[in-house]
Amino acid sequence: MEENIDKKYMRMAIELAKKGEGAVNPNPLVGAVVVKDGKVVGKGYHRFFGGPHAEVYALEEAGKEACGATIYVTLEPCSHYGKTPPCAKKIIDMGIKKCFVGSSDPNPQVAGKGVAMLKKAGIEVVESVLKDECDKLNQVFFKYIKTKIPYLFLKCAITLDGKIATKTGNSKWITNEIAREKVQFYRNKFMGIMVGINTVVLDNPSLTARIQNGVNPFRVVVDPHLKIDENCKVVKNNEDEKTVIITSQKNQFVENSENINDKDFEIKMKQKRLSQNNKVKFIFLDKEKFSFKEMLEEIGKMGIDSVLLEGGESLISLAFKEEVIDAGEIFVANKILGDKNAKPFISGFSKDKMEEAILLNNVKNNIYGENIGMKFYLKKYSEK
Amino acid sequence: MEENIDKKYMRMAIELAKKGEGAVNPNPLVGAVVVKDGKVVGKGYHRFFGGPHAEVYALEEAGKEACGATIYVTLEPCSHYGKTPPCAKKIIDMGIKKCFVGSSDPNPQVAGKGVAMLKKAGIEVVESVLKDECDKLNQVFFKYIKTKIPYLFLKCAITLDGKIATKTGNSKWITNEIAREKVQFYRNKFMGIMVGINTVVLDNPSLTARIQNGVNPFRVVVDPHLKIDENCKVVKNNEDEKTVIITSQKNQFVENSENINDKDFEIKMKQKRLSQNNKVKFIFLDKEKFSFKEMLEEIGKMGIDSVLLEGGESLISLAFKEEVIDAGEIFVANKILGDKNAKPFISGFSKDKMEEAILLNNVKNNIYGENIGMKFYLKKYSEK
Repeated sequence: MEENIDKKYMRMAIELAKKGEGAVNPNPLVGAVVVKDGKVVGKGYHRFFGGPHAEVYALEEAGKEACGATIYVTLEPCSHYGKTPPCAKKIIDMGIKKCFVGSSDPNPQVAGKGVAMLKKAGIEVVESVLKDECDKLNQVFFKYIKTKIPYLFLKCAITLDGKIATKTGNSKWITNEIAREKVQFYRNKFMGIMVGINTVVLDNPSLTARIQNGVNPFRVVVDPHLKIDENCKVVKNNEDEKTVIITSQKNQFVENSENINDKDFEIKMKQKRLSQNNKVKFIFLDKEKFSFKEMLEEIGKMGIDSVLLEGGESLISLAFKEEVIDAGEIFVANKILGDKNAKPFISGFSKDKMEEAILLNNVKNNIYGENIGMKFYLKKYSEK
Repeated sequence: MEENIDKKYMRMAIELAKKGEGAVNPNPLVGAVVVKDGKVVGKGYHRFFGGPHAEVYALEEAGKEACGATIYVTLEPCSHYGKTPPCAKKIIDMGIKKCFVGSSDPNPQVAGKGVAMLKKAGIEVVESVLKDECDKLNQVFFKYIKTKIPYLFLKCAITLDGKIATKTGNSKWITNEIAREKVQFYRNKFMGIMVGINTVVLDNPSLTARIQNGVNPFRVVVDPHLKIDENCKVVKNNEDEKTVIITSQKNQFVENSENINDKDFEIKMKQKRLSQNNKVKFIFLDKEKFSFKEMLEEIGKMGIDSVLLEGGESLISLAFKEEVIDAGEIFVANKILGDKNAKPFISGFSKDKMEEAILLNNVKNNIYGENIGMKFYLKKYSEK
């Protein structure tokens, strides 16, 4: 019976943690609940990057009631002086008697030290409460802090016959409004959005968060030959300076360029203008056929902990080929094109047997009215 | 408040009616409930083709209690002497006081006469109670009795990229066991199953009902050039004589065939053997490119009121082209082939704009574990 009550409070902490979605990256999502004599006396969550930790909000709301109380935290309390003083110390100072922890902290600076500090001060610690669910909150954080490779989430809207556009490139709209609203949720949740240059050429998307109080994501365009139009929205509407173009090294403008032909020079000048006038950030890669892993590494170096891959066909196909997708949701509309010349969402594989098909694991299907969303998790990260 | 109670009993009658699914065709599904002093005193449903009507079971269970009671029937009681005496008469004879009716009967022999007979006998009649739901029970019956064209239901299992087989024709298995079980439900619900010859050649399916106490459907194979292998399962396992082949008139064996070449003669002999030795039924059509409408007309003439279309690509495409599909369920697996040479479930259309896509209307999405089923109704039939 007591165990059920503890799970109930941890679940409350998990729900609180989720409120920070989109605002705390690359910090983890954390929720905390302080309970005394069967009553919740303090609640808190990590609200924004660099802001106070969840425990601080919860303990301060509890005030004197914290003395002798129990705290539920989705992630091991920190023990180091970072942007804020260590939470483990605050828990001890406020007189907490017992502490329930969901996930352990994978941050090498913390790694079990928070729990050790609490135990040393005589606080009873119960670890791994609803661990799976707490781990799920911070897949992005767990992957990025250990690998420095951004978490890659695929979002894709297709017709029932697997197409993302007609043969002429028309794609407005495939899914219904309920499904498209969910996309806005994802654009807010992940730090970056990634698309191929063809998507920019065909759709001229804004790639901004249209959610209320949403933070604009980094807009990453993969454009090996720097074909981007300088008047497109992601270039023109770059006041937040969050547009990033990944292109070939050979397109980079360098002073004293010698022995180059006119066309190459023109591209280099375009690169210079984009960079200087439009404040576009650039990632330069060696060749012209990029490896997805390499792109993710470079994006990770910019401090972007997560990327929403929105298409098109060649980027999605490459991501499946290199098996770099961590999770995703594929939205399926109640529409059929039935046209072999329409654009598929994925191509380039060759399979003789049905059992060789790419399997989407850990699926949770969502119903959006007449559309559906097949959500899947291909990889799972924990603090270990 | 009274209305709610009436709907509750009508819903009970609807649930009873569903128990007859697969056993009553081409009769309608009907359920009946007799209620006296707020207590259910009799329940019944139409159990098998030619058997007693729902009202008979319900009234006989009620016995003397029927006198002064209320009856709820999903379909207007019959007024003519058919396979059984008219139910309206039995309702009157048993002393029923009030009668709630769901759908009216579209059968020209009945059409409002049942209700008129009841009213004339002084019974209070309330019509159209949960009419939509009652109509939904008998879509097959309503269409067939008026048009003599079988109800066409599409069942199709596809990968997330819209394929029904790999480039080599391999298709085992696309969907999971839960979804495949639902297919067995449909095979029991409809009187016929229809496939193209390529499906028979590639998969050699049995096309039987594997459901407990299920009735085998008619197995209709569309085979314009009579390419069917005489050793395939639908030919060999034809003890129930329910295999039907639709082929070109020119393949029919006729005595005294003159001036035909060896190859044509061989095919005619094959047709003769299939017919005489294997008891296969034949539908002969004029040309070699069949119209779906024409095929359905001919199937209807055999007394088959409903057809489950199971594939493959060309039959499905033709059915969408001629807009003959009444409803269907498309099962989508959490699998991707990503191979442009894999077999799509539909082809042959040409669409420039996304808004020109074929729209599946009235969708109800079903979740089968990691697979989904998009169920749709393109046409709606009522007694009118």
